[in-house]
Amino acid sequence: MMILRHSPASPFVRKVKIAADVLGLADQIKLEDTDTIAPESGFLDQNALGKIPTLILEDGSTLFDSRVIVEYLDHLAGGGRILPKEPKARFAALRLQALCDGILEATLLIVYEGRFRTPEMRFQAWLDRQQSKTDRALAVLEAAPPALTETPDVGQIALACALGYLDLRLAGAWRKNHPKLVTWLDQFAARVPAFARTKAPT
Amino acid sequence: MMILRHSPASPFVRKVKIAADVLGLADQIKLEDTDTIAPESGFLDQNALGKIPTLILEDGSTLFDSRVIVEYLDHLAGGGRILPKEPKARFAALRLQALCDGILEATLLIVYEGRFRTPEMRFQAWLDRQQSKTDRALAVLEAAPPALTETPDVGQIALACALGYLDLRLAGAWRKNHPKLVTWLDQFAARVPAFARTKAPT
Repeated sequence: MMILRHSPASPFVRKVKIAADVLGLADQIKLEDTDTIAPESGFLDQNALGKIPTLILEDGSTLFDSRVIVEYLDHLAGGGRILPKEPKARFAALRLQALCDGILEATLLIVYEGRFRTPEMRFQAWLDRQQSKTDRALAVLEAAPPALTETPDVGQIALACALGYLDLRLAGAWRKNHPKLVTWLDQFAARVPAFARTKAPT
Repeated sequence: MMILRHSPASPFVRKVKIAADVLGLADQIKLEDTDTIAPESGFLDQNALGKIPTLILEDGSTLFDSRVIVEYLDHLAGGGRILPKEPKARFAALRLQALCDGILEATLLIVYEGRFRTPEMRFQAWLDRQQSKTDRALAVLEAAPPALTETPDVGQIALACALGYLDLRLAGAWRKNHPKLVTWLDQFAARVPAFARTKAPT
């Protein structure tokens, strides 16, 4: 049994959970709750960066971050399932994942601004800078949403997690001006039951 | 000819430059200076996230971020050169790259705190939180520096770039308490001439 250090609301963890489910590996992974704000030393021994997701393999070794874990799970499932082997599809999927991870990183910096700083120390120009990254990335995605494949690739999974996180943390404001992405996410959710199952409790 | 959107001090760009040099692809890549603080719209059309490195391929399509680009360059060079195909070595290299990218991300957040905020808006608890990630990661690496291979893998390249960036931005304070990593970096630099050639001008 592998162990996934997780928390229910982490969007990078959600990528891993959806990947594991799609690949039929979810029952080989036990979830362990992790507090990244005040991490215990045992967790910091597993990942010096103090970040989730962190996957602990059966031999006790660890893997992180989410991109490395989803590639490892794809490997365990035989390879080429959610991470295409054919170069054109592979780099399109990896590029889309990078774009959506970038949305998540920008949004997390906005969330952390509220979580770690006292109100008078929050800096609007920084928040605006991060939001502009998400706004531009969403405009690009709205102009040409990625095709959905029979088995979702890591890029599609990352996009679903990015949109889900914008719903969770920024009240779904993206929905108003991105109708094609709203439809895209509905279609993704209909094809990938793990998306609904991994929704963070509110 | 491919184009790499770059700036001379970016540690993530340096990963790509070293990878290209090691793979014999440097003469196929033209560098284009990029201001990420006040990016021009042309660059934002290439990468909505406004981040470097961004690689523009000969067909005009773009790739990012550094991890995706180094994998692409490895693919162009035949595959399995800096990103091993054998699973154990591959995931060790990817994990090391993730750890060192984590050091870089934490250090960049410290640098950005100085670059984007007015002095009274800098928040010590946040800086300490980021520094603690680097400190723990360096302790793990000092305890067991990774073996150097004939051709450096993406993990080793990322570690060299992380230590080089700590030299550039945090005055090499890491050197005092990490003698094995100092030796490791000297050995890496002796094997990989691109490391010296890609040093940021001071």
